[in-house]
Amino acid sequence: MKKIIIGVMGPGEKATAVDLKNAYELGKLIAQSGWVLLTGGRNVGVMNAASQGAKSVNGLTVGILPDANQQAISEAVDIAIFTDMGNARNNINVLSSDVVIACGLGAGTVSEVALALKGKKQVILLSDDEQSKVFFKNLSPENIYVVESAKEAIATAQAILNTNLGDC
Amino acid sequence: MKKIIIGVMGPGEKATAVDLKNAYELGKLIAQSGWVLLTGGRNVGVMNAASQGAKSVNGLTVGILPDANQQAISEAVDIAIFTDMGNARNNINVLSSDVVIACGLGAGTVSEVALALKGKKQVILLSDDEQSKVFFKNLSPENIYVVESAKEAIATAQAILNTNLGDC
Amino acid sequence: MKKIIIGVMGPGEKATAVDLKNAYELGKLIAQSGWVLLTGGRNVGVMNAASQGAKSVNGLTVGILPDANQQAISEAVDIAIFTDMGNARNNINVLSSDVVIACGLGAGTVSEVALALKGKKQVILLSDDEQSKVFFKNLSPENIYVVESAKEAIATAQAILNTNLGDC
Amino acid sequence: MKKIIIGVMGPGEKATAVDLKNAYELGKLIAQSGWVLLTGGRNVGVMNAASQGAKSVNGLTVGILPDANQQAISEAVDIAIFTDMGNARNNINVLSSDVVIACGLGAGTVSEVALALKGKKQVILLSDDEQSKVFFKNLSPENIYVVESAKEAIATAQAILNTNLGDC
Repeated sequence: MKKIIIGVMGPGEKATAVDLKNAYELGKLIAQSGWVLLTGGRNVGVMNAASQGAKSVNGLTVGILPDANQQAISEAVDIAIFTDMGNARNNINVLSSDVVIACGLGAGTVSEVALALKGKKQVILLSDDEQSKVFFKNLSPENIYVVESAKEAIATAQAILNTNLGDC
Repeated sequence: MKKIIIGVMGPGEKATAVDLKNAYELGKLIAQSGWVLLTGGRNVGVMNAASQGAKSVNGLTVGILPDANQQAISEAVDIAIFTDMGNARNNINVLSSDVVIACGLGAGTVSEVALALKGKKQVILLSDDEQSKVFFKNLSPENIYVVESAKEAIATAQAILNTNLGDC
Repeated sequence: MKKIIIGVMGPGEKATAVDLKNAYELGKLIAQSGWVLLTGGRNVGVMNAASQGAKSVNGLTVGILPDANQQAISEAVDIAIFTDMGNARNNINVLSSDVVIACGLGAGTVSEVALALKGKKQVILLSDDEQSKVFFKNLSPENIYVVESAKEAIATAQAILNTNLGDC
Repeated sequence: MKKIIIGVMGPGEKATAVDLKNAYELGKLIAQSGWVLLTGGRNVGVMNAASQGAKSVNGLTVGILPDANQQAISEAVDIAIFTDMGNARNNINVLSSDVVIACGLGAGTVSEVALALKGKKQVILLSDDEQSKVFFKNLSPENIYVVESAKEAIATAQAILNTNLGDC
């Protein structure tokens, strides 16, 4: 039966030290919750840090790669899905996640949050960029959750999953 | 030889009356400038209004559809491209446009602006949503152009095209 | 209103002299019939020859490119659609064509014929490879049309379009 | 580190009893070899049978779905990837597989074999359709392996993996 997948999205080359620390902790907590971690799969930034966090506690990690070659994968990805479709793969990232967590902010992350909202997904924002939180909260008041820490993100994800299960 | 394509992106069902008026004028001015108009191709909102504006002066219109069926196409689309890939087609919209104009704002439009920035495209924002202008201008100061009218959008597109040609 | 689009698919680098001659004539006849030509858009093989044939009589040509850069486009493509999704774009080629004509045969062409059948499209085969004709005719007896010349392909396309219009 | 993924492709609704038996055994043997099974993920045909075979011995199963909804997934899929891109997802199936095994034959399977060859993948054919074996063997003599049983397919996959590792 389908396992629960939590997607962690965030900047690659432009991730900040805080983003990386949060991403690592998110990955670790997701694995400890018994969930599968999904990221963009590359060996940089938030994708890489989250995957490493999950592997540090023997979690299962999925990476949805934008290209078709094996060179750019994070060492911490178990299941590598090669899309060869560039940033259009961002839509697959969010559709395949039961809950989407955005950790930090870049143009790619903004596209993923927006595609997630378009796909009726619930999105948790963990970022110190105050403006982006207000922007997205206005765009979709009922589907955006603003949190202040990785722990709070996980508690919020758990609450969303409980509610969605209740809907079934 | 490849014709110049200007993409107009904006809300479908949720477009405002102002968005629709701007979209129609954009389509008309794009056609009058001798450019091809590209939209998301559906028979609603900004896509439909821009295509109608272009056809009102015998322009050429391309629609990149999210689905595979012929029912939902704007009557004003000449060239219908069926992707059957949902919102992932938003990436094709922006990659195929020499300049992207966002007219109004919804989650889909936000994803297109973000994907355009990710793809190194220059993006013109025509919207009365002040917050989104500030948000995107901060995200990419050098590639976002904020304008107040359809006419100003077209003048800006022309200036961008002139600069890009100069680069070649 | 949506124009009629005829797709011509065939080998790129591996096209034979006969394939190229047929492709050029197909492009020319498609344009002379008042239809839009759609190809994979690259500046080699059947795609390029068909587009040149169409332009020789002032036809309109659409190219669905597998990548995101402007370097590899056929000079004879008017409307360039950049998918950046590699061979997955083959599905867009066939879904966007009212009738698909396969001219010659390579692995990419085989994928396009198969995706066209999967998408309930009618496919015309123009090839001197006898085995492939038998193979596809067996795979889908009612949707595969085997022809011996470009002229016969166009007559068959016209007959298919007439039937489909009659269905509406 | 990336796990080895073996893709099993084959008909959905049109799978024969022999296809289903072979698929189940393939899934079981893939899991027993310590590999991850990848399929198209739907709850019919070869996809479903292979996934059930893998789960019968506690294997790990990945399903790459053509749509975005949770209704049509095989119960035996652990990791569901929602692409919402119809048959274009066939390209992802083959690019993400270290070795592709085609079990039975339909239009979708033909597209996957062809896309795999286009993507330089090695493909094992397990089918009682003699004509298709000859067709594909001619199309790509060096990358097509024809086998007579699930066991032979697995031995061939192992040999291919050994050779590819030797190349690194």
